[in-house]
Amino acid sequence: MKRLSLLLLLCLTAQAGCSKTEQQSHTRTEAQSQPQPRNIIFMIGDGMGPAYTSGYRYFVDNPETKEVDPTVFDRLLVGTASTYPDDDTYVTDSAASATALATGIKSFNGAIGVDTEQKPLQSLLKHAKRLGKNTAIVVTSELNHATPASFVAHNNSRGNKDAIANDFIDIKINNRPTVDLMLGGGQQYFQRRDRDILQEFRNLGYQSATELSQLENITGIPAIGVFADKGLARAIDSDTPQRLSHMTGAALALLKKHSGKAGFFLMIEGSQIDWCGHANDIACAMREMDDFARSIEIVEKFIQENPDTLLVLTADHSTGGLSLAADKEYLWRTEVIAQQRKSLAEFSRDLQSDADPGKSWQENFGYPLQAQELLALKESQASSEATYDAVVRISSRYSNTGWTTRGHDAVDVQVFAYGHGSELFRGFQDNTAISKKILQLMDGILTH
Amino acid sequence: MKRLSLLLLLCLTAQAGCSKTEQQSHTRTEAQSQPQPRNIIFMIGDGMGPAYTSGYRYFVDNPETKEVDPTVFDRLLVGTASTYPDDDTYVTDSAASATALATGIKSFNGAIGVDTEQKPLQSLLKHAKRLGKNTAIVVTSELNHATPASFVAHNNSRGNKDAIANDFIDIKINNRPTVDLMLGGGQQYFQRRDRDILQEFRNLGYQSATELSQLENITGIPAIGVFADKGLARAIDSDTPQRLSHMTGAALALLKKHSGKAGFFLMIEGSQIDWCGHANDIACAMREMDDFARSIEIVEKFIQENPDTLLVLTADHSTGGLSLAADKEYLWRTEVIAQQRKSLAEFSRDLQSDADPGKSWQENFGYPLQAQELLALKESQASSEATYDAVVRISSRYSNTGWTTRGHDAVDVQVFAYGHGSELFRGFQDNTAISKKILQLMDGILTH
Ligand SMILES: [Zn+2]
Ligand SMILES: [Zn+2]
Repeated sequence: MKRLSLLLLLCLTAQAGCSKTEQQSHTRTEAQSQPQPRNIIFMIGDGMGPAYTSGYRYFVDNPETKEVDPTVFDRLLVGTASTYPDDDTYVTDSAASATALATGIKSFNGAIGVDTEQKPLQSLLKHAKRLGKNTAIVVTSELNHATPASFVAHNNSRGNKDAIANDFIDIKINNRPTVDLMLGGGQQYFQRRDRDILQEFRNLGYQSATELSQLENITGIPAIGVFADKGLARAIDSDTPQRLSHMTGAALALLKKHSGKAGFFLMIEGSQIDWCGHANDIACAMREMDDFARSIEIVEKFIQENPDTLLVLTADHSTGGLSLAADKEYLWRTEVIAQQRKSLAEFSRDLQSDADPGKSWQENFGYPLQAQELLALKESQASSEATYDAVVRISSRYSNTGWTTRGHDAVDVQVFAYGHGSELFRGFQDNTAISKKILQLMDGILTH
Repeated sequence: MKRLSLLLLLCLTAQAGCSKTEQQSHTRTEAQSQPQPRNIIFMIGDGMGPAYTSGYRYFVDNPETKEVDPTVFDRLLVGTASTYPDDDTYVTDSAASATALATGIKSFNGAIGVDTEQKPLQSLLKHAKRLGKNTAIVVTSELNHATPASFVAHNNSRGNKDAIANDFIDIKINNRPTVDLMLGGGQQYFQRRDRDILQEFRNLGYQSATELSQLENITGIPAIGVFADKGLARAIDSDTPQRLSHMTGAALALLKKHSGKAGFFLMIEGSQIDWCGHANDIACAMREMDDFARSIEIVEKFIQENPDTLLVLTADHSTGGLSLAADKEYLWRTEVIAQQRKSLAEFSRDLQSDADPGKSWQENFGYPLQAQELLALKESQASSEATYDAVVRISSRYSNTGWTTRGHDAVDVQVFAYGHGSELFRGFQDNTAISKKILQLMDGILTH
């Protein structure tokens, strides 16, 4: 991504000039006179490997019509990225990959914003803050979970959740906390017995909310909303399944209204796609994908109205070894997936003490079990782990969904981009290159 | 892919003009005055889903160096494609997807060059032939296997192998067979008791060869080389593992020398990536990927020397539900995969009557089995199917490779392109759009 691409970018952003006949001379466009995108929106679908976006297209497809409609992912796809960590494996965890995406430097599995020497790394978000931009994080996990944490904190272990939460208020840039707007979960880390970080934010002038229904009470920046003890409720189990898209819309309105000329840097994570993948729960994953897709559509619309904005979207890795068919059958049954009411986790928990698991199964999945399956399910009730395994096995068989792991794998993820400078993310790149390009765009290095 | 893209293409191919300062006017470049690519090379990695190209990068990576080097796939990636058939499933077979890629029209699983009404469809290769181009097919499967067949034959079932082979000589364009140069396998279909198609080709003036070692004897076009009874030997089991790249180099030299101004259309298939996927044999798949990657590099070099050539490369679907890690372990052991000597199919066949399976295992895989594994393997020797299942299970566990199916799945595949017009294949597209764009490029519709 050197000179040639920079010139290409100029040409692409100056599309009006390029598309005219060769007799006409180029005219300097607004894009050329303002080479940096004013606003940067970095979206991360945690665990959202290639099968998730393909699967989502078929999940939302209307089976009554012959055509399969493209999704927002299809509209915005520009390339792919490798995700391997700087570790003795090609398979990354969310901390190492989030550190790569946040800082442009690969690190070891578990690392939060530190390199392999355990030295703190500069993040895009912090750099944006130093450039005078408003900074914001919107997630459905706890705010101090691996992905958002890597943009803010420094820790040798993602498990040090309290210390990471402390970094959110202790690390200051120009005497202010790093993030101007935070929406997500994590009350148990931000309102602890030993330290009430939320109160400390209030003392620094942050508006705050602790219920998603009070989000509208936040009318300015800085602000913090912590809406759940840890992560927000799963979309599939929630009364407000569109909570990420709701927070995204609110954040963009606040940032648009309260950011000056320098604009903003906003990181949005579809945090729980990964969690559903770890749970091998395809219905859970597709509902998270749906909320994430709606969030992207809100961003897409924002960029159409604010073209001085860049969206870059990727995944940190793929989770579960998901495949859209299994066991030699050439079918993936989206109608079975769409019927599922509760997550496998919630269903299995309730099932433990259920005297009539067959009835509950029919209610939750919309189809009855065969006698043999019901027997296996009843036998599994002896332990919660066995119950969960049985529920995954049987429900996956009915939808014909394949899973190879409750962890991650090393397949490349997809890269999506839209708006000012989006051409630079075309083709294959390492995940660290995504971050480096955004940094260079912010600094105006990539558009000279 | 309408007007805007066409204009964009002009601009991109006229890169020299675009990258100059805005004071300079566009000058008509050679690319603009010759809008059609002269030569078209369409490469298909059968079954080569996203995990195969990621996996290949790590398979060929030097573990001694910290950096992971990009592969030819990484250099040429431009987008992705959906693969669903026009059938009551989202999961395609190789016939339906080859028909989509060859003709731009979706059809039912099993269809060879016919639509859902079972009517014959025009293929890119046939269109190229009508435009006066030389046409060529290079594959490691039998020549009448689903993918190459869809460019030449018309049949309601891929299983009608004799009838499909007949189409290779019976369907004529301007009184000549459709394909000018064919290299692959399939002697049992092309030299049958009831019909010696190879002899018929010879009678029409085709040069011929029946051993890969005689390939050099072919000195002109038309020609046919049929080098195996069915498919060529697996790369991993072959004395000449680089047989596809060898054929690719020979085909390009012949086509370059013997094609006129109209150029050529060449379809190259890495046929057996899919077969190794069906076999759930990762070492087998990586060796096929290696031969395929070498073929692509030969094509890449050809285009650097012949820039009036377009390469488009994709997969028809993904096979096996492959994942690069499994069972919650964050590891994919390429060093274990690299050690494997024979394919699982060949190893298992030999193992059936093996009195010392532990010794054979050590020899073939480079590591010893645990007592319990050896016991399971010995017990499995009772049936060939059980033996195979045990061999897959144990060897996959050691490399920590995940498989969910011996069939296909519905994940999107990647699209790669290089050379004249390659920009048109950027981003997401349906597999039929790939074919339509190539057709429009050939006809000069896409570059007005
Ligand atoms: Zn994860
Ligand atoms: Zn196949």
